[in-house]
Amino acid sequence: MYRIAVFSVLICGLGWAQPASDSLPATSNVRGAQYPRVYPDLRVAFQIKAPGAQKVQLQPGGDDNGLGKGPFEMARGDDGTWSVTTPPAVPGFHYYWFVVDGVAVSDPASETYFGYGKQCSAVEVPEKGADYYLPKGVPHGDVRAHWYYSKTTAAWRRAYVYAPPDYDRNARTRYPVLYLQHGAGEDERGWTTQGRANFILDNLIAAGKAKPMIVVMEQGYAVKPGAAPSQPGAGRGPQQPSAFEEVVINDLIPMIDAAYRTLPDREHRAMAGLSMGGGQALQIALTHLDKFAYIGSFSSPLRGGADLKTIYGGAFSDPAAFSKKVRLLWFGAGTGEERMYKPALAMHQDLETGGIKNVFFESPGTSHEWQTWRRDLNDFAPRLFQ
Amino acid sequence: MYRIAVFSVLICGLGWAQPASDSLPATSNVRGAQYPRVYPDLRVAFQIKAPGAQKVQLQPGGDDNGLGKGPFEMARGDDGTWSVTTPPAVPGFHYYWFVVDGVAVSDPASETYFGYGKQCSAVEVPEKGADYYLPKGVPHGDVRAHWYYSKTTAAWRRAYVYAPPDYDRNARTRYPVLYLQHGAGEDERGWTTQGRANFILDNLIAAGKAKPMIVVMEQGYAVKPGAAPSQPGAGRGPQQPSAFEEVVINDLIPMIDAAYRTLPDREHRAMAGLSMGGGQALQIALTHLDKFAYIGSFSSPLRGGADLKTIYGGAFSDPAAFSKKVRLLWFGAGTGEERMYKPALAMHQDLETGGIKNVFFESPGTSHEWQTWRRDLNDFAPRLFQ
Repeated sequence: MYRIAVFSVLICGLGWAQPASDSLPATSNVRGAQYPRVYPDLRVAFQIKAPGAQKVQLQPGGDDNGLGKGPFEMARGDDGTWSVTTPPAVPGFHYYWFVVDGVAVSDPASETYFGYGKQCSAVEVPEKGADYYLPKGVPHGDVRAHWYYSKTTAAWRRAYVYAPPDYDRNARTRYPVLYLQHGAGEDERGWTTQGRANFILDNLIAAGKAKPMIVVMEQGYAVKPGAAPSQPGAGRGPQQPSAFEEVVINDLIPMIDAAYRTLPDREHRAMAGLSMGGGQALQIALTHLDKFAYIGSFSSPLRGGADLKTIYGGAFSDPAAFSKKVRLLWFGAGTGEERMYKPALAMHQDLETGGIKNVFFESPGTSHEWQTWRRDLNDFAPRLFQ
Repeated sequence: MYRIAVFSVLICGLGWAQPASDSLPATSNVRGAQYPRVYPDLRVAFQIKAPGAQKVQLQPGGDDNGLGKGPFEMARGDDGTWSVTTPPAVPGFHYYWFVVDGVAVSDPASETYFGYGKQCSAVEVPEKGADYYLPKGVPHGDVRAHWYYSKTTAAWRRAYVYAPPDYDRNARTRYPVLYLQHGAGEDERGWTTQGRANFILDNLIAAGKAKPMIVVMEQGYAVKPGAAPSQPGAGRGPQQPSAFEEVVINDLIPMIDAAYRTLPDREHRAMAGLSMGGGQALQIALTHLDKFAYIGSFSSPLRGGADLKTIYGGAFSDPAAFSKKVRLLWFGAGTGEERMYKPALAMHQDLETGGIKNVFFESPGTSHEWQTWRRDLNDFAPRLFQ
């Protein structure tokens, strides 16, 4: 495009005003945008130009994702710029939107991140001393958008595939594979765009903490031809049948094993996911133990008090057989998300009591959001394929 | 995420209302969103729920990108849903936004596309009988987000790299490379996300019309450490120095030749771009003819009446030497974008008169937008490396 005049008008809304000096633009912003800005004490300042609006609010995604309990009323400046500064936030990646005269709108100064079934704004609030998810001076893997045809859905699908550093150079090396799923309302882009899974793996691999592995991220929605279309974000637990399980087993895994240099056996295949995706990982992996030896559930909606003998196709009914087969069963949740934390801890304890060894990991202070899931991956990945 | 209640509230804004029956949701929408919808005669219907707004308009990107000359006033329904249907549009990919009480906002029902220095809504209006840019039942290449360190900018950068079908299987084959740049206000995602360059190449390669090639797409912005930051979209013609030329020559090309199985000589290297990116391609390739043999300028802002002997470092001063070296010099523009079309045609004719053989391609009826550039690529790519 080459429409400078139009563009100059537009950037007025993007917050290139003179910023407060001890704060920095969020790394989640579009290039050059000065707001949102994060202060050293993790207060976050937001701005939007809306001279004609009567009322503007800042609404954090979810009830309280770490940005504070919204909505926050924004104040109008003389030039029609509306501003608000939140109290200190919990470090992490927080979805938000503005509500302009009652309409939820994205912040034009933010990159967009697919969540809640739409492209959302979000702000990255850095965690002091934590650099495990940042791009560092280490070899980087690449993230490949890979199209393939699904017989189950009779349609082309797109998977995101992380190929570890030097995958192309080590032309004879074969790699284990982690299948890693997003949450409801998100899609195959979430784990790299929001979660920075590729940088987490790069850093773990460079430090010798995790085995080099391929990570496959798909969209956890699938409908068969003629079936009613599913809506993004509609929570689909194990109760709600979805063609996604068939896609994974019959289309995705065979495609990945054919297109990439994988170690195509159960001992070298893991599945994990966050929230809805964790439910899918448990459902798919536990009912296909011939295909998976490592299983992770990050902040999933687990049912409390379930009969361990019968759930997941009876996978837990014979603890001795289970423990022989499954190398890792891993549950995680943030201490700031009681709704996910409590059932996960209960499941962990019930399984331990029942003789099923498993790991429980808690993320201190974080809620149902990506900082929890980054920490999860950072703990989970080093335990794989060892 | 697993917040069904919140999500249910949100999706009310995404237009899942009962749609008109002879229209179809645009393929540029987020999954499941029913609006925008395209009618068989290419009228486009837009909707947004905004009960509290006083005035809502639809604004096409640019003065007239094919969607019609805006702004279009939207009408409020009883339930607070605002609607408008445009006159029949020109086929193509059209940026737009809503203006809610004077504030330009994205349509939550649209995917987002980086343009105008922000994440924009856009609507795909299909072209009857044209399927060259659609995903078809042919082998697909993948698109790789590839991180690398630039010494010029002292920072990590991300390139998008199209690897042709079976790149990983043909482990001994080396490939020619096309460097392909986006326009001002866009970035390295544009050519695949908006332009569908990967599908265009997939289809050309499958039909035997184009040689299998690697396509490298970078972000055309670069600043050296300590230099003033550039703003996205600020039109940077050859007049305005940018570190991007140094990035391409000193960082990007050596990295690509090391990381991919390229044919690393000038006879197997092309550069092209659209609008600002076409200006960059001409500037970089014409002043580095030791590195490039194929050059394309799509809808670039060319200066009329320039002295052919001196521009681009005197590249045109010796027509015989030039014609011996350069296998293809290619100019394109849409007939609907007079500001780009006229100077490109004049440049073509001046060069022909001056003994510099070159191709001029016109895209009938299309403006300064992606349908023009898709057609450009579809004509340009088959002429490369033959």
